[in-house]
Amino acid sequence: MMEVLLLFFLATIIVATSNGYHVEIPYQIHLLRPQTGAGGHHVHGLSCLSWRLGVETNNIIGWTTVPQACEGYVGHYMLGHQYRKDWKVVANAACLYAQGLNLTGDGKDIWVFDVDETTLSNLPYYADHGFGAEVYNSTLFNAWVLTGKAPALPESLKLYQKLLSLGIKVVFITGRSEDQRNVTETNLKNVGFHTWKKLILKQSSESGTTAVVYKSSKRKELEAKGYRIVGNIGDQWSDLLGTHVGNRTFKAPDPMYYIS
Amino acid sequence: MMEVLLLFFLATIIVATSNGYHVEIPYQIHLLRPQTGAGGHHVHGLSCLSWRLGVETNNIIGWTTVPQACEGYVGHYMLGHQYRKDWKVVANAACLYAQGLNLTGDGKDIWVFDVDETTLSNLPYYADHGFGAEVYNSTLFNAWVLTGKAPALPESLKLYQKLLSLGIKVVFITGRSEDQRNVTETNLKNVGFHTWKKLILKQSSESGTTAVVYKSSKRKELEAKGYRIVGNIGDQWSDLLGTHVGNRTFKAPDPMYYIS
Repeated sequence: MMEVLLLFFLATIIVATSNGYHVEIPYQIHLLRPQTGAGGHHVHGLSCLSWRLGVETNNIIGWTTVPQACEGYVGHYMLGHQYRKDWKVVANAACLYAQGLNLTGDGKDIWVFDVDETTLSNLPYYADHGFGAEVYNSTLFNAWVLTGKAPALPESLKLYQKLLSLGIKVVFITGRSEDQRNVTETNLKNVGFHTWKKLILKQSSESGTTAVVYKSSKRKELEAKGYRIVGNIGDQWSDLLGTHVGNRTFKAPDPMYYIS
Repeated sequence: MMEVLLLFFLATIIVATSNGYHVEIPYQIHLLRPQTGAGGHHVHGLSCLSWRLGVETNNIIGWTTVPQACEGYVGHYMLGHQYRKDWKVVANAACLYAQGLNLTGDGKDIWVFDVDETTLSNLPYYADHGFGAEVYNSTLFNAWVLTGKAPALPESLKLYQKLLSLGIKVVFITGRSEDQRNVTETNLKNVGFHTWKKLILKQSSESGTTAVVYKSSKRKELEAKGYRIVGNIGDQWSDLLGTHVGNRTFKAPDPMYYIS
């Protein structure tokens, strides 16, 4: 997936430096504004860096799309170095925390991972759909999911490997639906997430529940079975709030969409 | 306090562009590195922007000082436009939320404000003490508090005024000690925070408790008295985590120190 990211990055540069307009490239990237760099300056009326911080700190909630003025900013952010750097800091903090744990070795210490934008990256899809500035289209997104071609988030994969080496078991809790189990399993394995204790997907009966309620319920069931959630990582605050959130939570970066 | 911030900003420019070294100015600012701008680039081995995001999202916890490599970055951030822009986004989100509330008008709807770096700014002090890169010195800091010269955070003051206009009562819960009540009251009033329902300071018997335990306990007491905490704003996650946190919380920016 590094190649994919690199391709994106080069494509971005071409778009940004040639004429600054729509260019037909494999993953079409919409108008990227060179003046809206990762520093977030020069956006009239809105600091996209401040908007992103507001999103990441859960101050800005319930939004449906990335502000139009920040589409280029978010594109540059996701395709550039800063997203990777932000991920490195999260994964590093999680690794340091995990290394310092007193583990029992009874197989009941688990770490909860979300899937989309936490384990698997949907950047190839979102790069083609305005980096979250376009209204979410479940039909198109599910078609992408069914390709099974989502790359791993590299820092997340390193964290996963570290946790396994420490004897911590991994549980995936995802908002993906049960009928996407096979493609999700294959996708996870293909990109390096080879093993897990449980992969929990949303049942059709749960389709109406919010992520925070659904995921709290699943974590409660895990604890009822004697598992100890030593850590919990997700790109949405709805992965990390509610009940039974775990001994420590980690917020992975994601300025592209919001799930309540 | 706008004048104070402007003075700081100009002072920064002088330091950064003249020779880049120690210059004796009213609020002495330590070596500011022009290459570590608000974008956080060009820091070897550490992205200070990613570090700041890690702090603001509560991924990096329990730290005692700003990393030495980020002192210049944090200084530029605090004295430049980005800190103000970040605050604007928080205050704007809080105002929008408050405006949308269905309030009863019975005087029981309250908003909890922390004081330091949420209501009052200690930037004049921290600018003189490495922006958090120096080890915290309670003697020096308390001497600064006793001057009563902390300026208001401008965006916080606007939020405060908006909340009062909506009929929401304000309660301050601060880690400042009871013996700093008079100077805190005077300081708050002098910079525009003229009225409040309660100003809760830490009793000497509570000096050993963490902020998260102390503040949860105080919020619990408020709810027991029939108050409804409709909102809660603080620069530390320990203001916003624990129990009885309120219907919605807002994280104000602060990359200078960590309180558990």
